[in-house]
Amino acid sequence: MRIDVLSLFPDMFAPMTQSVIGKALERDLLEFSVTDFRKYSKDKHMHVDDTPYGGGAGMLLKPEPIFDAMADINAAHPGNKRVILLDPAGKRFDQQAARDLAQESHLVFICGHYEGYDERIRTLVTDEYSLGDFVLTGGELGAMMMIDATARLLPGVLGNTESAHTDSFENGLLEYPQYTRPADYEGMQVPEVLQNGNHQLIAQWRLKESLRRTYLRRPDLLADLELDKNAQKLLREVKREEADKAN
Amino acid sequence: MRIDVLSLFPDMFAPMTQSVIGKALERDLLEFSVTDFRKYSKDKHMHVDDTPYGGGAGMLLKPEPIFDAMADINAAHPGNKRVILLDPAGKRFDQQAARDLAQESHLVFICGHYEGYDERIRTLVTDEYSLGDFVLTGGELGAMMMIDATARLLPGVLGNTESAHTDSFENGLLEYPQYTRPADYEGMQVPEVLQNGNHQLIAQWRLKESLRRTYLRRPDLLADLELDKNAQKLLREVKREEADKAN
Repeated sequence: MRIDVLSLFPDMFAPMTQSVIGKALERDLLEFSVTDFRKYSKDKHMHVDDTPYGGGAGMLLKPEPIFDAMADINAAHPGNKRVILLDPAGKRFDQQAARDLAQESHLVFICGHYEGYDERIRTLVTDEYSLGDFVLTGGELGAMMMIDATARLLPGVLGNTESAHTDSFENGLLEYPQYTRPADYEGMQVPEVLQNGNHQLIAQWRLKESLRRTYLRRPDLLADLELDKNAQKLLREVKREEADKAN
Repeated sequence: MRIDVLSLFPDMFAPMTQSVIGKALERDLLEFSVTDFRKYSKDKHMHVDDTPYGGGAGMLLKPEPIFDAMADINAAHPGNKRVILLDPAGKRFDQQAARDLAQESHLVFICGHYEGYDERIRTLVTDEYSLGDFVLTGGELGAMMMIDATARLLPGVLGNTESAHTDSFENGLLEYPQYTRPADYEGMQVPEVLQNGNHQLIAQWRLKESLRRTYLRRPDLLADLELDKNAQKLLREVKREEADKAN
């Protein structure tokens, strides 16, 4: 996979050399390049923004530098690509979107900064994504987050133990509580079943606690799942226990 | 405001010296410190993780290094603080949460990495937040995003023009389309009203296009708003126009 980013703050992408993304780059599983589109400004002061038509506060990114930077990327790497803009009006980014993007051979992220961008820039874009209803200074952190969630799904990026774990999140339930040594830390104990239980008891405990956490904190996730008979029974137990606690 | 971060990858926080966060640090509006909690390991190999009780793939963050790092932060900075963990089971982070955190004097972010963390670490935490239903390699990018959204709301961090703009997002509607020069870019024109309209016409056009974008892309946002008579009329026009387009 190749990933290009258009940004006015290329130094912000330093975290991309760390952790799994760094490993993916070292192993040539990923090509990653940041273009500072300020260098495409035709203005002698290298401006990339201008005041909005119709008045109002703030500055907008002009179309030309971004169109010209995209033209160079298209010339150097012809072929299909997804061009992604982070925008509060976009689709909510989620694990399915990450899986979807991980199938592509070339992604381009356009990172806004300042107040906003000229509407015509959207004509370059194939996908608009939002990370949530909050305001950020720029698109860089969001782009890195999407790149992290996507690149870790590329074959060979994660080791076996790590990818096995991903699957357990992807069963649609929240994670069960996990514990490591010591068995007693400042009086807080690891549950008995995890220390002495057999595999089957442990699996049942974990499924039940996953169901409990999902039921208590994210009941919306349960609505989308088809639970088998065993899970349905455990969920009924959870509901009874939580109702008893509440009384 | 003071922000502490506990992370095994302190170099990932390089972007925090850029952009508005960098400005806030320069102006002493923010104190920011990252603690590599690996240095609190009592293990001669400096391990901070161990295998899970009950079996399973992956490694979990051990309680001791994080408890010990928190104890040092509490000793150096007594007083109220919010201790934040990024977790898919947490509340969804949004602009209201950013406004809420911006009122605090001290925030601490605990960044997981590897597969997960010992459940007992949650006893240190006052707030669990989620940025969405996707899997990341670690909590660092999410913490930076929350810090960016929060720190830009601190008094004095943003200039006047920038903060004015924030308010327009915060009216609960998506942004209207914006345009800057040139009026014609490769045949794509800036709407006539923005070039020649008076203030009142421009304000009406912008409100209508904000309503249109919100209606088409995020109708859930409209449900929460109390629109005045003028906005209700514009929204009816939008619905009629979009229904006509669909036929």
